Amino acid sequence: MGPGEFASDTDQRLAYELGARVAQQNWILLTGGRASGIMDAASRGAKQAHGLTIGILPSADARGVSDAIDIVIPTGLGNARNAVNILASQVIIACGMGSGTASEVALAIKSHKPVILLNVSPACQTFFQELSAPVSATVMIAQSPEEAIEQAKTILKLRDPLP
Amino acid sequence: MGPGEFASDTDQRLAYELGARVAQQNWILLTGGRASGIMDAASRGAKQAHGLTIGILPSADARGVSDAIDIVIPTGLGNARNAVNILASQVIIACGMGSGTASEVALAIKSHKPVILLNVSPACQTFFQELSAPVSATVMIAQSPEEAIEQAKTILKLRDPLP
Amino acid sequence: MGPGEFASDTDQRLAYELGARVAQQNWILLTGGRASGIMDAASRGAKQAHGLTIGILPSADARGVSDAIDIVIPTGLGNARNAVNILASQVIIACGMGSGTASEVALAIKSHKPVILLNVSPACQTFFQELSAPVSATVMIAQSPEEAIEQAKTILKLRDPLP
Amino acid sequence: MGPGEFASDTDQRLAYELGARVAQQNWILLTGGRASGIMDAASRGAKQAHGLTIGILPSADARGVSDAIDIVIPTGLGNARNAVNILASQVIIACGMGSGTASEVALAIKSHKPVILLNVSPACQTFFQELSAPVSATVMIAQSPEEAIEQAKTILKLRDPLP
Repeated sequence: MGPGEFASDTDQRLAYELGARVAQQNWILLTGGRASGIMDAASRGAKQAHGLTIGILPSADARGVSDAIDIVIPTGLGNARNAVNILASQVIIACGMGSGTASEVALAIKSHKPVILLNVSPACQTFFQELSAPVSATVMIAQSPEEAIEQAKTILKLRDPLP
Repeated sequence: MGPGEFASDTDQRLAYELGARVAQQNWILLTGGRASGIMDAASRGAKQAHGLTIGILPSADARGVSDAIDIVIPTGLGNARNAVNILASQVIIACGMGSGTASEVALAIKSHKPVILLNVSPACQTFFQELSAPVSATVMIAQSPEEAIEQAKTILKLRDPLP
Repeated sequence: MGPGEFASDTDQRLAYELGARVAQQNWILLTGGRASGIMDAASRGAKQAHGLTIGILPSADARGVSDAIDIVIPTGLGNARNAVNILASQVIIACGMGSGTASEVALAIKSHKPVILLNVSPACQTFFQELSAPVSATVMIAQSPEEAIEQAKTILKLRDPLP
Repeated sequence: MGPGEFASDTDQRLAYELGARVAQQNWILLTGGRASGIMDAASRGAKQAHGLTIGILPSADARGVSDAIDIVIPTGLGNARNAVNILASQVIIACGMGSGTASEVALAIKSHKPVILLNVSPACQTFFQELSAPVSATVMIAQSPEEAIEQAKTILKLRDPLP
């Protein structure tokens, strides 16, 4: 998960590498699916590494979908689809931050889904760790795509494989 | 699409064959995903023919999912997920009928998605054809899974491949 | 509930009277809220009789809302909002029929919400009665707005008042 | 908006006063509707001041609704209903903070709905102001319910009255 139109160049570079590493693990990459920012960069990274990509779109049809999405799920739900993104994921990696991404991380904490934060501000890190404390949710900070993948592997080893 | 707990033996036999034929076309089978009725039978048919299956669940987690689903999308939306099922499909084949399936066929007509009805009552056929007339939506009647697949092929040849 | 753009003059006349009679019972009228067809006519009838009206819109903002709606709930959910309409209602009266209305009646049957059908075709009556039989849901046929209200009163006397 | 089970005593006292002040302005109070935390406290405050209260529930029926809710909207959407809460509001006041509330504030920023934060941590304030900057959304900090109401009045004077 990560920002669309407001993604920085660094965010996009990290997302591309992250997508490639997700695919190398034989994991499925699920994003918001649009041809923009982190959704697009991570999906392109995953396809370059021959992975499978799913895009859960806010719109009612496939217009605006990234070319790098294999399985397109238009929902027609607008931003309410963010709740579906979280429930359909086993681990949430946020790469960069924006208002849509923040809603997803918050819903992940509420749903006790593990979260890994990559390239976010100090206030963002502190805030989501504050949110996670009372509900004993997992919020980890990664310094690189490689570390994010290692953290995800550790989390998945400790959990039931079903989303 | 089709009934869960109230699916008849005939419905389930037809759904199994339909799922297998969908997979033989190299199409992806999308169902409501639960381990019940048509969702389960069609998905098992598709897996037996080495197809890819997606299940869009009403629940917030994967409990109750059919073993024959490859890609599990828990939505937490309850019956509102029926609207997602329709938007994520290119052709809707209803095998048997129930109240959830009827809501999906009606939403398909509203969204101008083509519908094929298999093993439904005369009143059901007449009703959905009445609904489709003012909006010029496509509602076809199939006598067998084989005919349903032929109708779907005809529809897909005439349309843009994106859902 | 009832059709928007495809509502007939008779549908709209009946909906206006129905809205007025709902308000006279001191019931709250809940519709899909748009300035079109049955939603608009029923809401105008209710306001003329000094009732309270709620409109649950498919859109993300209030554009296109009927002037006769007091409480506007934009949902941004598209047709998935039909599921909310049903869960937020205690009795569903369908006045006329269209594809959106049919999805609502089907979801009402699935959710065991009582349904009253006014001014619908014979095939429609037969079909929804077929759907309701296996789940023991209530589907009644009314010949007039007055009879629909009497049926709703009978249903509400037998039930818990919470939606 | 505000936390449910994890609301502090201070959060609840502020929410009660806030609800009362919302009602005194003849505004309608919309909350998540459950008999818990800020939803319940704000609604009780509004009822004590003879206001109108709406509760948009995550559940499919009215179980667990606060006694102080006049208009109950069960949605069956789970946490996806948070997106509806935001779209149905003209101004969002967060009183205290939790993961569900954070998702609502983030969605409000995404939807360009004005947000007022009351009794939240410094990291929370900084984070949401960081999120709002690139999209020019309004995020204000209030020191008291009285100040929150004054800020809301200022915002509403500058805007179109429709949600």
